[in-house]
Amino acid sequence: MQYKKIALLAASVLLSLQVIAQKKQFTITEATNGMTGSLALQTVKQPSWQPGTDRLWQIVKTNDGDAWVRTNYPDGKTDTTLTLQQLNKAIKGDLKNMPVFTWLDGEYVYFRNGNEVYMGVYTADGFNWNLWTKLPENAENVTVDKNRNIAYTIDNNLWLLTTSKELKEVTKEKDPNIVCGKSVHREEFGIDKGIFFSPNGKYLAYYRMDQTMVADYPIIDWTTGKNTDIKYPMAGGTSHQVTLCVYNPNSGETVTMQTGEPKDQYLTCVTWSPDEETVFIALLNRDQNHLWLNKYDIETGKLVKTLFEETDKKYVHPQHSLYFLPGGNDKFIWWSQSDGFMHLYEYNTNGKEIRLLTKGDWVVNEIIGFNKEKHEVLYTSSKESPLEKHGYAVNWHNGNVHRLDTKPGMHNFWASDNGNYLLDAYSAKAIPKKIVVHSTDGDFSKVLVDAANSLKDYDRPTIKDVQIKAADSKTTLYGKLILPTNFDPAKKYPVIVYLYNGPNVQLIHNSFPESGNLWYEYMAQKGYIVFSMDGRGSGNRGLSFEQVTFRHLGTVEMEDQMKGVAYLKSLPYVDSSRMGVHGWSFGGFMTTSLMLKYPGVFKCAVAGGPVMDWKMYEVMYTERYMDRPQDNPEGYEEANLLDKVKNLKGRLLLIHGTNDDVVVWQHSIKFIKSCVDEGVQVDYFVYPGHLHNVRGKDRVHLMEKITEYFEQNL
Amino acid sequence: MQYKKIALLAASVLLSLQVIAQKKQFTITEATNGMTGSLALQTVKQPSWQPGTDRLWQIVKTNDGDAWVRTNYPDGKTDTTLTLQQLNKAIKGDLKNMPVFTWLDGEYVYFRNGNEVYMGVYTADGFNWNLWTKLPENAENVTVDKNRNIAYTIDNNLWLLTTSKELKEVTKEKDPNIVCGKSVHREEFGIDKGIFFSPNGKYLAYYRMDQTMVADYPIIDWTTGKNTDIKYPMAGGTSHQVTLCVYNPNSGETVTMQTGEPKDQYLTCVTWSPDEETVFIALLNRDQNHLWLNKYDIETGKLVKTLFEETDKKYVHPQHSLYFLPGGNDKFIWWSQSDGFMHLYEYNTNGKEIRLLTKGDWVVNEIIGFNKEKHEVLYTSSKESPLEKHGYAVNWHNGNVHRLDTKPGMHNFWASDNGNYLLDAYSAKAIPKKIVVHSTDGDFSKVLVDAANSLKDYDRPTIKDVQIKAADSKTTLYGKLILPTNFDPAKKYPVIVYLYNGPNVQLIHNSFPESGNLWYEYMAQKGYIVFSMDGRGSGNRGLSFEQVTFRHLGTVEMEDQMKGVAYLKSLPYVDSSRMGVHGWSFGGFMTTSLMLKYPGVFKCAVAGGPVMDWKMYEVMYTERYMDRPQDNPEGYEEANLLDKVKNLKGRLLLIHGTNDDVVVWQHSIKFIKSCVDEGVQVDYFVYPGHLHNVRGKDRVHLMEKITEYFEQNL
Repeated sequence: MQYKKIALLAASVLLSLQVIAQKKQFTITEATNGMTGSLALQTVKQPSWQPGTDRLWQIVKTNDGDAWVRTNYPDGKTDTTLTLQQLNKAIKGDLKNMPVFTWLDGEYVYFRNGNEVYMGVYTADGFNWNLWTKLPENAENVTVDKNRNIAYTIDNNLWLLTTSKELKEVTKEKDPNIVCGKSVHREEFGIDKGIFFSPNGKYLAYYRMDQTMVADYPIIDWTTGKNTDIKYPMAGGTSHQVTLCVYNPNSGETVTMQTGEPKDQYLTCVTWSPDEETVFIALLNRDQNHLWLNKYDIETGKLVKTLFEETDKKYVHPQHSLYFLPGGNDKFIWWSQSDGFMHLYEYNTNGKEIRLLTKGDWVVNEIIGFNKEKHEVLYTSSKESPLEKHGYAVNWHNGNVHRLDTKPGMHNFWASDNGNYLLDAYSAKAIPKKIVVHSTDGDFSKVLVDAANSLKDYDRPTIKDVQIKAADSKTTLYGKLILPTNFDPAKKYPVIVYLYNGPNVQLIHNSFPESGNLWYEYMAQKGYIVFSMDGRGSGNRGLSFEQVTFRHLGTVEMEDQMKGVAYLKSLPYVDSSRMGVHGWSFGGFMTTSLMLKYPGVFKCAVAGGPVMDWKMYEVMYTERYMDRPQDNPEGYEEANLLDKVKNLKGRLLLIHGTNDDVVVWQHSIKFIKSCVDEGVQVDYFVYPGHLHNVRGKDRVHLMEKITEYFEQNL
Repeated sequence: MQYKKIALLAASVLLSLQVIAQKKQFTITEATNGMTGSLALQTVKQPSWQPGTDRLWQIVKTNDGDAWVRTNYPDGKTDTTLTLQQLNKAIKGDLKNMPVFTWLDGEYVYFRNGNEVYMGVYTADGFNWNLWTKLPENAENVTVDKNRNIAYTIDNNLWLLTTSKELKEVTKEKDPNIVCGKSVHREEFGIDKGIFFSPNGKYLAYYRMDQTMVADYPIIDWTTGKNTDIKYPMAGGTSHQVTLCVYNPNSGETVTMQTGEPKDQYLTCVTWSPDEETVFIALLNRDQNHLWLNKYDIETGKLVKTLFEETDKKYVHPQHSLYFLPGGNDKFIWWSQSDGFMHLYEYNTNGKEIRLLTKGDWVVNEIIGFNKEKHEVLYTSSKESPLEKHGYAVNWHNGNVHRLDTKPGMHNFWASDNGNYLLDAYSAKAIPKKIVVHSTDGDFSKVLVDAANSLKDYDRPTIKDVQIKAADSKTTLYGKLILPTNFDPAKKYPVIVYLYNGPNVQLIHNSFPESGNLWYEYMAQKGYIVFSMDGRGSGNRGLSFEQVTFRHLGTVEMEDQMKGVAYLKSLPYVDSSRMGVHGWSFGGFMTTSLMLKYPGVFKCAVAGGPVMDWKMYEVMYTERYMDRPQDNPEGYEEANLLDKVKNLKGRLLLIHGTNDDVVVWQHSIKFIKSCVDEGVQVDYFVYPGHLHNVRGKDRVHLMEKITEYFEQNL
């Protein structure tokens, strides 16, 4: 008996040891794409507030398959359900999955099935669907306004299908390098479109970009072996020329706003006035240090007024359109970093600053919505912590602010049209994902999703939050140290530093997974320490934090990263003879820079899509931070890596997408050329057909390649 | 005293040990380019026989610097010396080095200095030099005929500067894809030029190639980032259309030879009749199995006569123009593989075969010259051994043959105009280089150079000649086994197989250095066995040896190489778990094929400029050996490597020149794409700006890259 007990006990000890031992290791596929694939967290699919209501729509699974359902708040009652089956019956279609629905107003909703645009009218009896139009096969930039106008581009020209289904050929440019209705300025300045319907759909404003004078750059379709030249303006080179045109479908006439010279200026923040009589354009000079917020008469194209100007010794960086306050035509919110942090200002259309709505040494991230009745602007900011994002409401009459959430972490909000309700989706290191509906006033709250931890069966690393003083000895930098899963403080481990450290990007957040990236955890499972830190020059920390790198990109950033290295070297369990570094894009620039300017620190490095010489990067981004090469030759020379390959110690793998139209392939090819010229050995790999990032299934190949490289060489 | 003796003895033993130990190791630079650089063997510079004489000119070093000197044979007396100083004085120039002199006849000689053409007249008093003309900057294909006509191309058009210095714009093609005066058919069929002066300089024949209908392929200048499309006809695709035109500078008229249809046929072996009344063209159909030797009237362009036809079930492969026998206008030599080996046939201009001049299971390599008085054709062949090349004379009246040399090895000859004297430069495994002047009749011989062994201080490997039976169990294949310099038969060594094994190329010869390549010796010094062998399908062994691969390139070749592998595995000192393979071009195709079709045999491989799918290789070469993809889909499918990447075991490094216009970059890029698609890891490197081969200084980088790859992965 006694014997049996002991045996049982032993068996149970064995069992629990086995349970511990059985914690799973990530596969490279899980480590790469798991969070959007097999390890995805529970979520709310396609949440949307029906305009004019407190009703939230979402896609849910039902016994009859996916359905689009409406839930009323605060009672939480579901009162409408549209199943895929019902939808297919209504449109006589055979959709396999629920389409993406977009509300135009409280009544009209549309979705696309390939080139078919379906319009639905929502009534008390449910939806009445019809095939609104079938767009041409090659239609792009399809834009449906709330009045059911549809604009789209075919190649370089713009077309309009009016509410009454008249088809208008808005532009007839013959030269393919005069492009209408598309995003301009290479999507800098927050620009992501080129079609701007007026509020009531009476007019159509659009960007017209003349890039005939811009240098060609070749992009090859490697499947067919055919080249297509794109227009890629490189720093210091001839840039494109953009204007804003307003088309009147009734008259068929087009008026070009008289934005004047020099023609290579930037037309940013395009916003219609609510009365449809004027458009606002924030003109920014090419040097990017002087902005004019201008109002133009759309009938004549003439400048009505410069509301105000903004200047900065280094650069002004407009990124947001004007947000008109609801309930009037004359007040709007302007985003500005003029006090050193991105904040919201209330202006009237005469250019008078009415009120500074937000203030502090933190930044506003997004405007979520408005509560017209309560005179509140709803927004997110980094006020609580540079590593978190929370929601706030500010009263534009009295400046009172209240917070819209209570839990730590990174919050994303979808506000209802009236601003009374919010969908709040958030995560933090200990919270995989929670999605909550709550009222803006905080009185109501209901949890929709409290996602189970999809990683709970995995062998997870210990992660240390790290704060380091920057090279200026005063600025606090935030980082994360991910320890090997089998961590033994008496041992020494190799380290991989992952970095980006460029403008507008922040890697370190309080979110889930805490590591920020399962590949770091995968490497931790393989016995590596992974370290990541946002040095000065990176995003979300305010203007002076960012602008310290002005005219010498890479320099201060490396000094800060070397502080991170010093910290790592101070750790008794770091094997400082086995440190690696990896980054992509700006991070690829940083990685290569560290290998060439601090040779010997890192034994091995992987630089993806790296900028090697800022003279070959685009005008808009580069000249903001570096000025033109003509005006800052020393800065460009200092940052140029092509002539410093001789310094390389250790192994460096460069990786590039062959079709990268952001950091063009020429960067790494020219670097390789320099290496060959100088007799320096370097490793290389390319991802055929891939653009600036290797995404999707092929990313698994990429991360396996990088992993193998560190395993073989670190 | 006794003690001292022993001490001295010990010291002397130490010293000799030191001497042994001090044998030098090759640097990678020496291993790569040493034989043309720091380790170059003594030679005769610019040997040339003055036409109509037994006088040999060469560049020699004198106390006054380089000089061009003339030596009379058989007396060996030097009677003329032109120093660089004298030349500079004569032309009022400042040449830093001796130019390349070319005799036009016994009297006129010319050289170029950049775009300047200098003409010299040689008399008993020496040279009279003058600046003949200064060519346009962008002149290419500059051709000077013996009558001092100069033809050249500018872009796609042909120009002629007549003897009387009249400048004629021979062609005025506006479309840059209609190309005149340049080599055609991608330099296949022995074609290396597009300009053919008639024997007395009265007419100018030239190739005109219309490639407007050929597909574009992009070649990027990575320094500037600009693309230039070239015309690259891929197997099975639309090919270019070539005609032969004859220009009469007196009348200014051009006549196109009526070579007819189909227009994508090949115009090969272009030869003027000595009387300047006709031209001969060997028309070859696109299928390359039917040749017509045609004679055309240059006044009318009309076909005068088809002298004869040649057909073959697999392919006819014309590679040589007609050689008219001296002393008449009606007899010429025709090269043909019709009996299975490349031999010389005497024909008359009516198409009557007069005599088979050479016969045997060996091949004729080159015609060296003629001895008109003795009625002898001087040629080289592989009669003594497939691994050697020797000189012979055959009497075209009686067929008597006598050999022109006596020593083993690879002989290259320069015959005097009258065929009485030969410069014979040869090497063999034990002979670094000997250069001898001897008389064709063998009565006279004088050694000019008996080069010292520039490698004598180096640690050289033992090399074994290897003979292996091919996979057909009967054909003898030749190879070389290079043992590690520290070879110990009791140990086991890793092996690197270097191969090519494609048509027209032979790697194994009896020449110096015996290894064939100092990089093999470099690897031998690092402890590798290097093995190389010419399997069936390779050059210099006759038609059936080559044609066994017809319509299924790669297959038989691999079977033979696997016989080599079996031999290696049979050797007790081979570590068969550590075998690597490396090849370039066809050898890159073979290397990759072996990795995918015999997975697991090789642990590691390096494939340079590899053909991955014959559908992407050029029409002329590919269709000869594979027919068109439309006509041989199974053969192409079998050889296609793009869809077989899943088979890869072990590590494979691909290397490609970014500007390769022979095996286009698309081959390796598409292979990488397949690897990414299939989740297969592969390594890659590119040489920016390099064409099909990485030559010059950068080749050192390449060989270092390959060396490191084997060191890291084998």
